[in-house]
Amino acid sequence: MKNNVTKQKVVDAASSLFFQKGFHGTSVRDIADRASVNVSLISYYFKGKQGLLEYAVTNYYEAYLEKIEESLEKTSDESAMYRLNELIFTIIHYKQMHHQLTCFIQRELSLDSVFVREMTVTYLAKENYYLKELFQETIGKSVSHDEKMYLFMQLKGMLITPYILHSDWKGQIVGQFAHEQFVKKYTKSIQKWIQFNATITQQ
Amino acid sequence: MKNNVTKQKVVDAASSLFFQKGFHGTSVRDIADRASVNVSLISYYFKGKQGLLEYAVTNYYEAYLEKIEESLEKTSDESAMYRLNELIFTIIHYKQMHHQLTCFIQRELSLDSVFVREMTVTYLAKENYYLKELFQETIGKSVSHDEKMYLFMQLKGMLITPYILHSDWKGQIVGQFAHEQFVKKYTKSIQKWIQFNATITQQ
Repeated sequence: MKNNVTKQKVVDAASSLFFQKGFHGTSVRDIADRASVNVSLISYYFKGKQGLLEYAVTNYYEAYLEKIEESLEKTSDESAMYRLNELIFTIIHYKQMHHQLTCFIQRELSLDSVFVREMTVTYLAKENYYLKELFQETIGKSVSHDEKMYLFMQLKGMLITPYILHSDWKGQIVGQFAHEQFVKKYTKSIQKWIQFNATITQQ
Repeated sequence: MKNNVTKQKVVDAASSLFFQKGFHGTSVRDIADRASVNVSLISYYFKGKQGLLEYAVTNYYEAYLEKIEESLEKTSDESAMYRLNELIFTIIHYKQMHHQLTCFIQRELSLDSVFVREMTVTYLAKENYYLKELFQETIGKSVSHDEKMYLFMQLKGMLITPYILHSDWKGQIVGQFAHEQFVKKYTKSIQKWIQFNATITQQ
């Protein structure tokens, strides 16, 4: 138990530093200082900075996919649009509750590295599959393949933009209450977009 | 003249390598090899990798803002929505024509560095100002301040997502023709979104 608390403390410190200074700009010493632990402990637990990164990101995605699958299961008797709306809420909520790590991971994902390819195969392909399936069902059949692709691109853009352009609105989201409000309102604005596209394409 | 050609060759090589391997993952030697020039020439022209980065990004943004201002000037007699639509086309077109540098810059921008703060103050504040002004005019007055902020966030998301999640659709956009097609069709899908939001908020 105590081990897990310390591990989490190190992960939190690393997430915050990776977010602020990037992976390359952060040293193991910085992380140890921030977490108030000994440098050797980080080597012992994670075998260095790369290991710590992999641990943090893997944990992030495992829990993320669990939340997604939970949401899908809970809504399995509902319509595709209802399920998609719930899923959007789940995704934005999770990302916002871990917003520093989300921002950092989103940035790393735009790099063409071995790490990214591994994450893509293991986790992002699944996330994409779930989202796409529900989106396809929600959007009417009158839409061409191309158009559907662009709409899906827009949707995915909406799910990442707060974590890419975070400096644009970080001043406006301060404190736990503001985070919850942000999740609710921003989710609603995406749901409106889905509603609109579902409606016009069914005509 | 010859100097400029060589400089551009170095910038192109650097853009492509920064895009693929990141700034930290690229050495001056890599760039020199790719551009088939001597390493010392890069020091001579740009005073090293950081100078080269600043040169490339500054050039990118100077030309970008020029295009934006050209578009605004050309459409100065038109309605806000028409002008916004034209501006969206101009932005996506420019980004697509320089998509490797766009992807790289977008990634760097999510870092909280001195470089980012300088870029933000110098260029991004202007881009934001132009976009926001037209967007405010296009969107009806019945919308709350919060809602407007979220819609604007969505719009900005649409303008960056192809350059953040490029690995999702890079397989589908190959060759000059495909680039032009992408610009046209993707722009149209954003314009539809603007049309929709302008309509419902005016009710």
